[in-house]
Amino acid sequence: MSRAAHQSADVVRLRRLGIDTYQEPVIYLSQKSPVCRAEGWSAQSRIAVRAGSSIVATLNVVTDALLAPDECALSDVAWTRLGANEGDLVHLSHAPPVESFSAVRAKAYGRHLDPAAIERIIRDIVAGLYSDIELAAFLTAFTGAHAALDEAVALSRAMVDTGERLYWGHAPIVDKHCVGGLPGNRTSIVVVPIVAACGLTIPKTSSRAITSPAGTADAMETLAPVDLDLAAMRRVVEREGACIAWGGRVRLAPADDIIISVERPLDFYSHTQVVASVLSKKLAAGSTHVVIDVPIGPTAKVRSDDEAGAMEELIHGVSEALGLATRVVRTDGTQPVGHGIGPALEARDALAVLQCAPTAPSDLRQRALLLAGHVLELGGAAALGAGCERARQALDSGAALAKFEAICVAQGGLRTPPRAPFVNTLRATRQGRIGAIDNRRLARIAKLAGAPRAAAAGLEIHVKVGDAVTPEQPLITLHAETPGELDYASRYLQANPDVIALAEG
Amino acid sequence: MSRAAHQSADVVRLRRLGIDTYQEPVIYLSQKSPVCRAEGWSAQSRIAVRAGSSIVATLNVVTDALLAPDECALSDVAWTRLGANEGDLVHLSHAPPVESFSAVRAKAYGRHLDPAAIERIIRDIVAGLYSDIELAAFLTAFTGAHAALDEAVALSRAMVDTGERLYWGHAPIVDKHCVGGLPGNRTSIVVVPIVAACGLTIPKTSSRAITSPAGTADAMETLAPVDLDLAAMRRVVEREGACIAWGGRVRLAPADDIIISVERPLDFYSHTQVVASVLSKKLAAGSTHVVIDVPIGPTAKVRSDDEAGAMEELIHGVSEALGLATRVVRTDGTQPVGHGIGPALEARDALAVLQCAPTAPSDLRQRALLLAGHVLELGGAAALGAGCERARQALDSGAALAKFEAICVAQGGLRTPPRAPFVNTLRATRQGRIGAIDNRRLARIAKLAGAPRAAAAGLEIHVKVGDAVTPEQPLITLHAETPGELDYASRYLQANPDVIALAEG
Repeated sequence: MSRAAHQSADVVRLRRLGIDTYQEPVIYLSQKSPVCRAEGWSAQSRIAVRAGSSIVATLNVVTDALLAPDECALSDVAWTRLGANEGDLVHLSHAPPVESFSAVRAKAYGRHLDPAAIERIIRDIVAGLYSDIELAAFLTAFTGAHAALDEAVALSRAMVDTGERLYWGHAPIVDKHCVGGLPGNRTSIVVVPIVAACGLTIPKTSSRAITSPAGTADAMETLAPVDLDLAAMRRVVEREGACIAWGGRVRLAPADDIIISVERPLDFYSHTQVVASVLSKKLAAGSTHVVIDVPIGPTAKVRSDDEAGAMEELIHGVSEALGLATRVVRTDGTQPVGHGIGPALEARDALAVLQCAPTAPSDLRQRALLLAGHVLELGGAAALGAGCERARQALDSGAALAKFEAICVAQGGLRTPPRAPFVNTLRATRQGRIGAIDNRRLARIAKLAGAPRAAAAGLEIHVKVGDAVTPEQPLITLHAETPGELDYASRYLQANPDVIALAEG
Repeated sequence: MSRAAHQSADVVRLRRLGIDTYQEPVIYLSQKSPVCRAEGWSAQSRIAVRAGSSIVATLNVVTDALLAPDECALSDVAWTRLGANEGDLVHLSHAPPVESFSAVRAKAYGRHLDPAAIERIIRDIVAGLYSDIELAAFLTAFTGAHAALDEAVALSRAMVDTGERLYWGHAPIVDKHCVGGLPGNRTSIVVVPIVAACGLTIPKTSSRAITSPAGTADAMETLAPVDLDLAAMRRVVEREGACIAWGGRVRLAPADDIIISVERPLDFYSHTQVVASVLSKKLAAGSTHVVIDVPIGPTAKVRSDDEAGAMEELIHGVSEALGLATRVVRTDGTQPVGHGIGPALEARDALAVLQCAPTAPSDLRQRALLLAGHVLELGGAAALGAGCERARQALDSGAALAKFEAICVAQGGLRTPPRAPFVNTLRATRQGRIGAIDNRRLARIAKLAGAPRAAAAGLEIHVKVGDAVTPEQPLITLHAETPGELDYASRYLQANPDVIALAEG
C-alpha cells in the first residue's frame, strides 16, 4: 500500500528541526498544513501527538516555508519523550481539555481541595498534560499559606504514588535533608559517609539546584557520577550502606522534577511544595527515620522562629500521616556555610572536612557533626546525647573519608572538582567589621556567574559576620567558566556592594 | 569599515524563520554561537535584544544546523515588536533580573503589596519584561480573595497610568459593562445606540473574548470594523456620540491585553483582575458614569448573592477611589441570553433586537432596555424610574437602529455576519422539561467549535429553562467553520449530555 493511500489529513511526517525548548514539548506545524486548517488550530493550541506512544505539545505555527504542509517538527524534549524518528508518520488531534486543572483554578480562588482532586492534578502533571503556564499557576496556587495540612499530605502521597518506590526489607532506613536557603550548606556529603561508617543504611537521593546556586546532586557530581538508575542505586546502597545520587533519574516522586522546571525560573519557594517534595522523596526512597535541617536567618528561606514553627508543624503533620519518624533541627541561617558557593566550590569544602584538612571550614564541620549526631540517635546507632561525639570519632578516625571514597567508587569513580578559568576578587574599600551577609543576593550572584549549570562557577567568600577587615582585604572571589558570565555577575555585585555590609570597626 | 571590523561576539545577524509563538517573544540561537557560549546561555534564558528599539525574549537553543553560529531568529511577535528586518545586526545581552517579580512572589506568599510595588509590576508587564510563566504566576497570585481593596485600586490606577487616556472636555461621559460569564449576553450592541440616540456620549471600548466564546468586540466585528486607533475612535464618537470599538488597539490600559494572553488559555477568572480591568479601561476612555451588569447564577461567573455582594463592594470601593460614579445592576444569570453563542450568532441576535424583528430574542431585548434605562438615569437623560420607558421609545421608534447603522458606517461600514458551513443538531431523546442549563459547559462547547477565533462558529440553543420538550425536538445546533472543530465539539457534547438537564415533564 502506498503511503498516500493510508495518509489522512491528521497524519503528518516528522522532521527534526533541533530546537531545545527546555522542558515544554512544542510542536511546529505549517499554517498551510491541512490538519491545522481542518482543526482550526492556532499558536498556543494543545495538540495530542500519537505514534507508538503519545504526548501533548503546545503548537507553534510556522508562517514561512520552514516546513512543508504535510510535515511537522517537535522540540527536542517532545522528540525524546515520544521516542520519535526522522520521517515517522504521526497522528495529530486536539488534546482533550485537562479536567484536573479546574481544581487548580478552585485552589487559586481560595477553595480547599480533597485528596482525590490533588491526586488527579499530580497524575496529569506526571503524564505531561500540563503546559508551563499551567504548572506556573499550580505552583503559585499552592504557595505560601494557602494550603492546609491535609492538602500537603495529599500532595505528598500523590507524588509518591505516581513514581517508583524502593523497599529495603529492613529498618531503620535513615536520611537527612536541609530545607535549603543557605548557600554552601553541603552537609550531606559529610553526613552520609559518617552515618554509613557507623553502620546505618542511608540511601540519599538529592535534587539538583532549584532556586539555589547548587544542589547536593550538583556538588556531588563534581566528585563522582550521581546519574544512577534505580538498579545502580540499589547496588551501591547494598554494597556500601549509602549513596549520594541524583533523585531525578530514579523517578522517585517524578512530579517534583516536572514542577521544578517552572519553580526554578520563577524562583518560587513554598513551604507546602518543599515539605511535599522532601517527604515524598524520602518515603519513595524507603526511608523510615529522617532528620530535617531548618536554617533560620533574615535572608535564609525560613526567616524567623515563628516561620520555623509553622514549617516544623507542617513537617511533623505530614510525616505522621505518611508514617515517617522525623526530627527537625533548627540551625543558624544568618550567613553562608563554608567558603564556597557553587557546585565545585562547595564540593571542595565538603572534601576538606572529610579529609580533616587544616583549610576545612569549621562551620561546615560543626554543622555536619551536629546533624550526623541527630541521625545516629534517631536511627538507634547512638544513645540520646551521644550522637555528636560518635560522629566526631567516625570523622576524625578517617572512617568517614574511607566510606566516602568507597561510595564514590561504587557510584562510578572519584573525580577532582573542576576549577574556573575566570576569577575576579572584590576587596574591602575601607577598614571595618562585617555587619551582615545577604544570603539571597549572594546566591543570585553565584547564579549570574553560571552556577549550577557551570560546575566550576560560583563564588568564594573570604569573611564571616563579625570579622574585622582592613582596606584591600579580599571579601569575595567570583568564579566563572566564561568571560560573559564573570562580567554579568561582577556588574550585579558592583551595583549591590552591601551584599556584605561593612559596619564601623 | 567592514562588517567584521565592528561585529563583536554579542552582535548577530537576524534571520526570519517565521514561527508564531503567540504573545511570547522567543529568540532562536545556535548552540554553537559564540555569544551563547560566552554568556553561558541555555534554553529558557531571558535575553535582551537590541537594534533601534529593544525587547526581552525567551531563548530556544537550536541544536541542529537550522541557524549558523552568527545568526539568530525571532518568533513573529518578537520580530514585530522589535521592528526587525532580515539581515539586521542586533546586539544580545543578559536581560537584567526583573526586580518587580519579587513583589509577585511576596503576593503569592500571602503578603500585602503597596501601590508602588504594584505599579512597578504593571510597568514591567507593559514593557514586555514578563515571560508567560511569570504572567501566569502574577495572575494566579492576584486571583480570588487574596487581594485587598487598596491593592485592587493600585492595580487599576497602574493600568490606567501605563497607557493612553482620552479626555472629552465635557461630562457626563457614560458607559456600561457586563462582568461576564453569561453566554450570549451581547446587550452592549443594543444599549450603546439606544443611549446615544437619547443624546448621551458613550465611547464604548470592549475586549475580545477572554475566557468566553465571544467578546462584544468579536461579535461587533462581524457587523462593522472595530479595530480603530485612538484618532479614529475620537472621530466616530465626535460624529455619532458613540462607538463600539476594540479596546486592544487604542492602548487604553494595555497591561490588561498582555495579561489576557495568559488568562485566556488558563481560563482564569478573578474578581480583582476583572474589576481592575473593567474600571481602568473606563477611566482611560474618559468615562465619568458607568453601569455594571452583574449576572448571578449557579453556573455564571458570579454564583450567589453573597459573591455578588463582595464583587459590588469591590466595584464601589475601586470606583470611589478612581472618582467614577458607578451603578451595579444585578441580573438573572441562570441561563444564556438570546439564541446564539459565538461572535456572528450573537451579533444576529442583537441586530434582530435593534430591528424589532419578530424573531428577536425577548430576553436580550428586556435586559438591554433595563440596562439602557439605568445608564440614561445615571447620565441624567431620564428621571429616576423613567429610564427603561425612555429606552423603549428609542428602540421601538427605530431611532436606536438608525443610530446603530450610523455608528457602523462611521466605523467603516455595516457588514453581514457570516454563517458557518458545518452544523450539527442535538435533539431531545425523550419527553420532559428543561431543568437547568450549564453556562460554563455550553461556553466550553462553543469554544471547542472554534469560537471566538472562527467568527461563524458557536452554537444556537433552541430552548429555555422550564420549556416542555418532545422527543426529536432540537435542543442545540453546533456551528463550525471546519469539520475537525465540529467533530471536537460534538464529541464533548455527547460526553456531557446533561449540559441541558432534562427533568421529568
